[in-house]
Amino acid sequence: MTTGARRRMDVEQRREQLTAVALELFARRSPESVSLDDIAGAAGISRPLVYHYFAGKPGLYQAALRRAADELTGLLTQPCEGPPGKRLLTTLGRFFDFVEAYGPGLAALRGSTAAEGLLAEVRHTAYRQLLAQLEVSAPGARLEVALRSWLSQVETTAALWLDGRRIPRPELELQLVQGLAALTAVGAVHDDGMAELLRSLLAKEPEDTPFGLLAARLAPLAVG
Amino acid sequence: MTTGARRRMDVEQRREQLTAVALELFARRSPESVSLDDIAGAAGISRPLVYHYFAGKPGLYQAALRRAADELTGLLTQPCEGPPGKRLLTTLGRFFDFVEAYGPGLAALRGSTAAEGLLAEVRHTAYRQLLAQLEVSAPGARLEVALRSWLSQVETTAALWLDGRRIPRPELELQLVQGLAALTAVGAVHDDGMAELLRSLLAKEPEDTPFGLLAARLAPLAVG
Repeated sequence: MTTGARRRMDVEQRREQLTAVALELFARRSPESVSLDDIAGAAGISRPLVYHYFAGKPGLYQAALRRAADELTGLLTQPCEGPPGKRLLTTLGRFFDFVEAYGPGLAALRGSTAAEGLLAEVRHTAYRQLLAQLEVSAPGARLEVALRSWLSQVETTAALWLDGRRIPRPELELQLVQGLAALTAVGAVHDDGMAELLRSLLAKEPEDTPFGLLAARLAPLAVG
Repeated sequence: MTTGARRRMDVEQRREQLTAVALELFARRSPESVSLDDIAGAAGISRPLVYHYFAGKPGLYQAALRRAADELTGLLTQPCEGPPGKRLLTTLGRFFDFVEAYGPGLAALRGSTAAEGLLAEVRHTAYRQLLAQLEVSAPGARLEVALRSWLSQVETTAALWLDGRRIPRPELELQLVQGLAALTAVGAVHDDGMAELLRSLLAKEPEDTPFGLLAARLAPLAVG
């Protein structure tokens, strides 16, 4: 390995390390209140050295957002087991873990133009992953609207939960999954794709789980 | 009336007129593509005169957003008749009218920091109005999360509908109202406030409407 290659590697590692430190600070406090001095202090290096690796706070903030988005993408696409309702519940749990870990920083993201592109990217991943978990390959327009609008409901629910944490997490997670089943049942009257999804949810869900119980009760809703 | 007072009145009227013209342009095209020259041309005045009334495009854009927000607030708080489901459906119809009228401009709002404050304001109005229409005076934490997250679902559904209009509007509107009832039924297991809301929806909704039919079918969901 040449000295140049080693140095580049060092630079990459240093940037990685700084990004991780910055992300931790941005997660615990509102991003505006985190200064470059705070980040330099936490990383144990000088402020000018931070400038050597990143062109100021915006660049570092963007790198931290990128890292957080990659982490969330990793969580959302992690494999999980069981029937669809169980898998959805597992994935929702991972999403709420992420929300819990990055709480204050996330609250500042809404309306941030820096984050808009990354948010759109993560939302797209979440939608693709939802289709995979529900075993839907070619969603019609109605099913797409239902699933995407449910995802925005999940997002809002997490943001509201974070603000005060007045409702137990497991309860909210279960309610969201059951809400998706209910939404599918409501839409099934108008749309074959949604009716099929509801049938497949009912067929695969064991009746002794809370989701299975709900699913069985939802069946009559789909009949006109 | 003194000359000064008359002049102030003229200035106010002129600003009003310019704002209305600008809003119409911002609604039909993406805001970035609307120039001050376009606005001056549409208003039949010179570009320097536009500057006389507004400090450039950002100020005019902000005024147009304010006007649109006021208009939407007016639509959302307009009185309507009948049982809760019918009233919700009427209000949703007015919201979709607004979305249809201001389509392209609205699509550009997401992630706009200029609009963030106004959006929060309109969302708050929508939430207060929803409580009023459902005749709920002191919502608990669970009901609040359910209603606010449903509102974000409405917003996302409207944005997705706008992008291609592949689903008939009345169908989506009905589905959203039914979705709210289904969501309430799902939450009623965990929460007395939601159970009470579901009961009141069932009690007030005539059984021969699609919503009443759905509401009757939802009743068993609330029983544990």
